[in-house]
Amino acid sequence: MQLFWLPLLPCLYVTSLCSAEQGLEFPSFDGKDRVLHINERNYKKALKRFDMLCLLYHEPQPAHKGRQKQLQMTELVLELTAQVLEDKDIGFGMVDSQKDAKVAKKLGLEEEGSLYIFKDDRVIEFDGELSADTLVEFLLDVLEDPVELISNPMELRAFERMEEDIRLIGYFKGEDSYYKAFQEASERFQPYIKFFATFDKTAKHLSLKMNEVNFYEPFMEEPAILPGRQLSEMEIVEFVHQHKRATLRKLRAEDMFETWEDDLDGIHIVAFAEEEDPDGYEFLEILKDVARDNTNNPELSIVWIDPDDFPLLTTYWEKTFKVNLFKPQIGVVNVTDADSVWLDMSNDEDLPTAEELEDWIEDVLSGKVNTEDDDDVKDDYDYDVVDREDRDLFK
Amino acid sequence: MQLFWLPLLPCLYVTSLCSAEQGLEFPSFDGKDRVLHINERNYKKALKRFDMLCLLYHEPQPAHKGRQKQLQMTELVLELTAQVLEDKDIGFGMVDSQKDAKVAKKLGLEEEGSLYIFKDDRVIEFDGELSADTLVEFLLDVLEDPVELISNPMELRAFERMEEDIRLIGYFKGEDSYYKAFQEASERFQPYIKFFATFDKTAKHLSLKMNEVNFYEPFMEEPAILPGRQLSEMEIVEFVHQHKRATLRKLRAEDMFETWEDDLDGIHIVAFAEEEDPDGYEFLEILKDVARDNTNNPELSIVWIDPDDFPLLTTYWEKTFKVNLFKPQIGVVNVTDADSVWLDMSNDEDLPTAEELEDWIEDVLSGKVNTEDDDDVKDDYDYDVVDREDRDLFK
Repeated sequence: MQLFWLPLLPCLYVTSLCSAEQGLEFPSFDGKDRVLHINERNYKKALKRFDMLCLLYHEPQPAHKGRQKQLQMTELVLELTAQVLEDKDIGFGMVDSQKDAKVAKKLGLEEEGSLYIFKDDRVIEFDGELSADTLVEFLLDVLEDPVELISNPMELRAFERMEEDIRLIGYFKGEDSYYKAFQEASERFQPYIKFFATFDKTAKHLSLKMNEVNFYEPFMEEPAILPGRQLSEMEIVEFVHQHKRATLRKLRAEDMFETWEDDLDGIHIVAFAEEEDPDGYEFLEILKDVARDNTNNPELSIVWIDPDDFPLLTTYWEKTFKVNLFKPQIGVVNVTDADSVWLDMSNDEDLPTAEELEDWIEDVLSGKVNTEDDDDVKDDYDYDVVDREDRDLFK
Repeated sequence: MQLFWLPLLPCLYVTSLCSAEQGLEFPSFDGKDRVLHINERNYKKALKRFDMLCLLYHEPQPAHKGRQKQLQMTELVLELTAQVLEDKDIGFGMVDSQKDAKVAKKLGLEEEGSLYIFKDDRVIEFDGELSADTLVEFLLDVLEDPVELISNPMELRAFERMEEDIRLIGYFKGEDSYYKAFQEASERFQPYIKFFATFDKTAKHLSLKMNEVNFYEPFMEEPAILPGRQLSEMEIVEFVHQHKRATLRKLRAEDMFETWEDDLDGIHIVAFAEEEDPDGYEFLEILKDVARDNTNNPELSIVWIDPDDFPLLTTYWEKTFKVNLFKPQIGVVNVTDADSVWLDMSNDEDLPTAEELEDWIEDVLSGKVNTEDDDDVKDDYDYDVVDREDRDLFK
């Protein structure tokens, strides 16, 4: 197979597949350069020219060939994204952390590999999967209004179903100053955290008082009510920052690396469960119970991964963690070296109860179950311990 | 930007993004050839060697450069898929429809651009998006058991929530001959149609009698009950074939082209609605009502597209159909030329009612609303008509 020339792009598809039928044509890169190389001379002009400017802050041209390719690959992802969104007035650019250090400093770019989106007077950091799919979906979300209005019972049901997301909802008289404060707060979290508002009696179903804002943590049935009734933008922003690390949070492509970096003392409690699978669904319901019982424990934040959302990582995780992802799993992962310990659920027909899971989590939080102490733990509990050595044998 | 050399792959990602943290490494193609070029000499050996063999049946090496690239791109998608699934004992190969015509005939390959999966004594055709994500997820699904057991109320809830899918559920004494017939039928539809079974009292919640099989059309609350109680494999297969074109069906990456090819007299009624969006959710609920009212009309099959599932196609659809996909839309699309007519919902604050939608659908089915008859329709109804000419101006 010859590989050397290909200007390939993610999610390209063979048009001959449905040559007789029209309406489903995936884009392929047309070869036109749209991504700018940003420097001191052109950055101001670029900021002015577009409604939105997306800048990839990247490491200097690497010496290593593999990394060079990856950098060019990333640029191509940006090129395809730029092409797909051509009519949306979005500019794209690259900023080299060494050559363009001055510009980077002026623009406040800090994390290599992140994409920074400049919209109006704010900056949104994207630290997710750099694929064209994820990026296009993310940017289309940024283009939407940051606050969605809820005006009938059906829309309220839609709101209630979004249990995976952090959501805020406020009840206002109309577009007055309190609503404006809410809207301005929403812009600081768009599109990661969802903001809703209602101007009518829909609010009663949620027992919202006028000018009150409710904060829903993912998977929680009861909202946290923001103290005080007439809130300033900063009060809302502050509250969100305090509460945004949820007790149970789903790994999402659009902020997966940010979530992963937000570890607790170098570890994550990770649960794998396919929501579409009866077993996985059942396990997830148990997890939600545990999360609801422990929502006030700031030391607990379980990362739920649905393998269906990350097909390309599934076998990597199976190898790295030595677990079977056709079944639900829960374990502790050390993010420094990816060592891990997994709760042994292989012998039981039944999944653990919420109580059993809570006991195990307590053991994790107390350090009794940990990724370093392999043998001890194995004797006591029959946990599956996988460290780097085992993994190498397993390859 | 230099493009000529890149061995790029879908969903590759820059490792430097989270170099300090381990556990989320996307695979990049390692350059090792795993995809076989299948011919008369090696096809039998390949079939024997692997548990599962996936063969891409493709057009002969095209003269056109763009199509050559696309073919090579597709091969790379297969290579990455093969690499990711390396430990699963799946073989991958390419069959040229001209050079390998004899082999293709022997193997029963017919549609260029389709992937054929040989597992045990059956063949599964994949006619979906040829991206590594979609393909890996699909093949992992094929590796699972074709029948899932439901054995407690929580798993039953999981089953009930899968309203988007065609699902069958049977109640059996155990793994007897009636269950076996059900299992063998399931293998013919795996993984497109989901089969479930229960051996215990869970069945009572569904009012299932012993050896009875229920067929759930997507979005329908009541199942179709398979006539007779003790069913043969062929009776089940026949019934599924008769009912598998649903009144409302969701476009899915894994069989999108097959769905699109299954048009009704050259047209599709297409509804765009984002389920995660309050407006989209509301519109979808109306659509479901319409589908439930008209489930016995064999001429009606609405294709629901959630734009969130196809980010790379969203702006292509917006241009081709001249519609705004931030809002729900419904229209008629001619699959031969992608001409379309859309129901005008722009002036109303409210979405159409189920009755209004039914009236419009009746007009579509009677030919009163159609994609050819632009001016007439425009005067009468103020539908947005987009034909190829308009689209060209719009570019």
